Amino acid sequence: MPDIVKSNPPIIKNANEITNENIEKKKLKLRRVAIDTYKENVVFLHRECDLYRSEGFQALNKVEIRDGADKPPLIAVLNIVDDCDLLEPQELGLSEQIFQQMDMPEGTDVTINHASPPASLRHVHKKIAGHRLDDAAYLAICKDIVENRYSKIEIAAFLVGCAESGMEREEMYSLTQAMVATGETLNWGESLVVDKHCIGGIPGNRTTMLLVPIIAAHGMFMPKTSSRAITSPAGTADTMEVLAKVDLNPDKLREVLKKEHAFIAWGGNARLSPVDDILIAVERPLSMDSPGQMIASILSKKVAAGSTHLLIDIPIGDTAKVRSQSEAVKLRKLFEYVGDRIGLHLEVVITDGRQPIGRGIGPALEARDVMKVLQNSPDAPLDLREKALQLAGRILEFDPDVRGGQGYHLARDLLDSGRALNKMKQIIQAQGEHDANFEPGKLQRDICAEFTQSGQEKSAVVEAIDNFQIAQIARLAGAPMDKQAGVYLHKKVGDKVNQGEALYTIYAEFPSDFDFAIAAANKNNAYTLSI
Amino acid sequence: MPDIVKSNPPIIKNANEITNENIEKKKLKLRRVAIDTYKENVVFLHRECDLYRSEGFQALNKVEIRDGADKPPLIAVLNIVDDCDLLEPQELGLSEQIFQQMDMPEGTDVTINHASPPASLRHVHKKIAGHRLDDAAYLAICKDIVENRYSKIEIAAFLVGCAESGMEREEMYSLTQAMVATGETLNWGESLVVDKHCIGGIPGNRTTMLLVPIIAAHGMFMPKTSSRAITSPAGTADTMEVLAKVDLNPDKLREVLKKEHAFIAWGGNARLSPVDDILIAVERPLSMDSPGQMIASILSKKVAAGSTHLLIDIPIGDTAKVRSQSEAVKLRKLFEYVGDRIGLHLEVVITDGRQPIGRGIGPALEARDVMKVLQNSPDAPLDLREKALQLAGRILEFDPDVRGGQGYHLARDLLDSGRALNKMKQIIQAQGEHDANFEPGKLQRDICAEFTQSGQEKSAVVEAIDNFQIAQIARLAGAPMDKQAGVYLHKKVGDKVNQGEALYTIYAEFPSDFDFAIAAANKNNAYTLSI
Repeated sequence: MPDIVKSNPPIIKNANEITNENIEKKKLKLRRVAIDTYKENVVFLHRECDLYRSEGFQALNKVEIRDGADKPPLIAVLNIVDDCDLLEPQELGLSEQIFQQMDMPEGTDVTINHASPPASLRHVHKKIAGHRLDDAAYLAICKDIVENRYSKIEIAAFLVGCAESGMEREEMYSLTQAMVATGETLNWGESLVVDKHCIGGIPGNRTTMLLVPIIAAHGMFMPKTSSRAITSPAGTADTMEVLAKVDLNPDKLREVLKKEHAFIAWGGNARLSPVDDILIAVERPLSMDSPGQMIASILSKKVAAGSTHLLIDIPIGDTAKVRSQSEAVKLRKLFEYVGDRIGLHLEVVITDGRQPIGRGIGPALEARDVMKVLQNSPDAPLDLREKALQLAGRILEFDPDVRGGQGYHLARDLLDSGRALNKMKQIIQAQGEHDANFEPGKLQRDICAEFTQSGQEKSAVVEAIDNFQIAQIARLAGAPMDKQAGVYLHKKVGDKVNQGEALYTIYAEFPSDFDFAIAAANKNNAYTLSI
Repeated sequence: MPDIVKSNPPIIKNANEITNENIEKKKLKLRRVAIDTYKENVVFLHRECDLYRSEGFQALNKVEIRDGADKPPLIAVLNIVDDCDLLEPQELGLSEQIFQQMDMPEGTDVTINHASPPASLRHVHKKIAGHRLDDAAYLAICKDIVENRYSKIEIAAFLVGCAESGMEREEMYSLTQAMVATGETLNWGESLVVDKHCIGGIPGNRTTMLLVPIIAAHGMFMPKTSSRAITSPAGTADTMEVLAKVDLNPDKLREVLKKEHAFIAWGGNARLSPVDDILIAVERPLSMDSPGQMIASILSKKVAAGSTHLLIDIPIGDTAKVRSQSEAVKLRKLFEYVGDRIGLHLEVVITDGRQPIGRGIGPALEARDVMKVLQNSPDAPLDLREKALQLAGRILEFDPDVRGGQGYHLARDLLDSGRALNKMKQIIQAQGEHDANFEPGKLQRDICAEFTQSGQEKSAVVEAIDNFQIAQIARLAGAPMDKQAGVYLHKKVGDKVNQGEALYTIYAEFPSDFDFAIAAANKNNAYTLSI
């Protein structure tokens, strides 16, 4: 067999002909193009640019950008511009996302080159071909993603490759681990740090704001970093913000936690599992939510946030994320498996998700419900209270000193005695109290039941409330951007309702929002009634 | 069981409060933003726009745009802009792609709304979940794609869902059919219209330009619509353009075909299988090329172009698209299956793809090789001649009057007698002759063999030539944009080569291209030598 050698490098005659003069021509001047390309690095090149012509760059090509320093190049997707007002032919336009990473002033000389696809893309191709990936592959993918080496379509390819049947539970663990490893992690210096997560989809489900004061009143640590709403009418951070400051720096968080054993803050500033944020930016418009991605997303964020004990709430309902008991149980087992592997003490509760929890939907309306429960007010929504007590009971039992089965009673005592309310007041004080305004929006409209065709039927019963549609109406009314906007439910499942009686009230601040919400309710009011 | 009714529509008190005044506020002024988003509809909204604030639009959201007329709305992906120079808050920016579809002047009042995902996306989700899709599903997907209702990430999701093991051969047929149905089709009014397609990846493989004159000289119809190079250093259209006009209108094509029984033109103007063009725009940056997509892509284009008989060339080689005989056979059977189902008379030949065919790589260099073969010139590349004769032989046997096994001899006669050359001259004349310039680029550099370490070995043998790398070097040199740029191979597989002897010459027109090509050859010269 012959001795095979790669005949590299070849002899280059007159290699010094590659002069600096030639290289100089390749420089482009940096220019900021104030377009928010949402977690994708995009650069713009003018169609008349010499480089575009000679190098065979094409729109959607990946290019690497160097500023001459020793820094590793940045990778971006190329868009082509035809307008000199936007960009001159000798300029390279940088979208907001990459301009910030570049961290060089406009006018800086840069060079661009064809970029190879990220090395880890071969793992994505293997995944697409049905192979199982190991820890190292997931880590390589997450590293490339967090360093902005993946375009949106490459991320889409990864997500679809991992979707549905495509991911073993051991792979979910590998991905979770990789997502934690490629971000920052918090350490609170406590051996028992509890957290709770609901997989979502149920409007008004503001139990977190009840659990935190109950649990902290018992003395356990519950540092709660929450999200703002993305597709829902209110996130916990939006709702807490009605009462207190939620945008706190890490030092302040530590101070509040030390003093009150809890906080309810916005987690968006910390780079906890940043890969998750990037994946979600693509998952959302794709309407993809595969179990593997969901589990890695939730658990990586919790581990990174320094939780040791976690309660997961899976609501079931026709318009919830999970629609059947068997689906919920399957998901529970996956959570348990990955939780165990990653060293979280994890419990799952399966709850009723057939309708919104509480009556208010929208930040101020939900905050009002929460405070009514804490104040043991006679018109507090009972379902919100009851669900919070059950979840709190499970979390309290993470405490080795709480006897199995006693959590619920303990939680009820903490709530009924006013100790939870007191703790909430202290937390609000410590975070920085807002002058809470529970007054709903000044534009108000009742959406009423109309079911009679013959005039015979006088009353009906609420059979179901479409979680998705009612959330949509609240969003159109202005929630969560306008804290006072949203929906207040007068009737819930099982309630009797008379012809013409109000099912709910829409609240808005702005006439255009108001009209859009009413139009949406007009098209589909989210209620199913039985006569 | 109770009688379930959807209590819609609800009673809307004072419905006339939705005034025109409110609706007016929602209007945006159209503005063209000269960014080429490459087959994706993108619109730009200013972050300070009232609508962005109140409606909860987010970057990457899909929106629908209406201009008040009865036309169906256009769908686009939203990008957010922070710079008033680019866009005012009351404006809606349209990328080139969608501005052309909108076909309204700048300043036109439009409204935007949240768009639902395209209805067919549910089929994509089913495909991702591992289900088999039927004809109707593929048709619905293709219709939505051709109407620009899919974002790039949704297309990526579809492609990945279909990739590899994910597509049954009956589904490949469904997709092919749907791709034909959603574009235009040509009908030449002849019962035997032949075509040939190579699945690609082999530089210099310009057999089409030999087949067409040979086949037409025999009197068969071969209307050849070819592509320009996308990722290769030359497409057939680029190479033919050295000799003749290739951008011909449909009437001209018919005229040339009637007179000469053949043409070699650029197919880019016809909307043949436009879905294919859109899918390729995403496949390419993803480096995806699944068998199902490849087959649907090739066969839909051929059926739409009016072919009745088709020869498929599958080259095998370590640096070709297909690397093994078993892989090639598997692919052949898929081509045969889908070809039969769609009513094409289809034959597949498996050929040697271990190195480039011919010696020239780049439009002018390849055109020169072709003409040398037609002219029976003593320095014509023998491998190109031989391959063309073999393929032509198979195509000639599509003619019922040609006896099985006689095709090759017939082809050789047509070539050796000068009849093929004559036909080529007539075709060139009919299409519009160019003043052919075969002179390669004025910047020239030999890339030479260097393998001696000890000074003992005086000669080596070429073991392999990396198709991909040599194509890359030719592209960097300027091909296909600069017709005279490219690479000319002095040594091919099996040739003896002495220390310091030239393996190939790089030709370029521009110094910067020249330097880049040399630098690439310096890094990896594409040759493997054995001592």
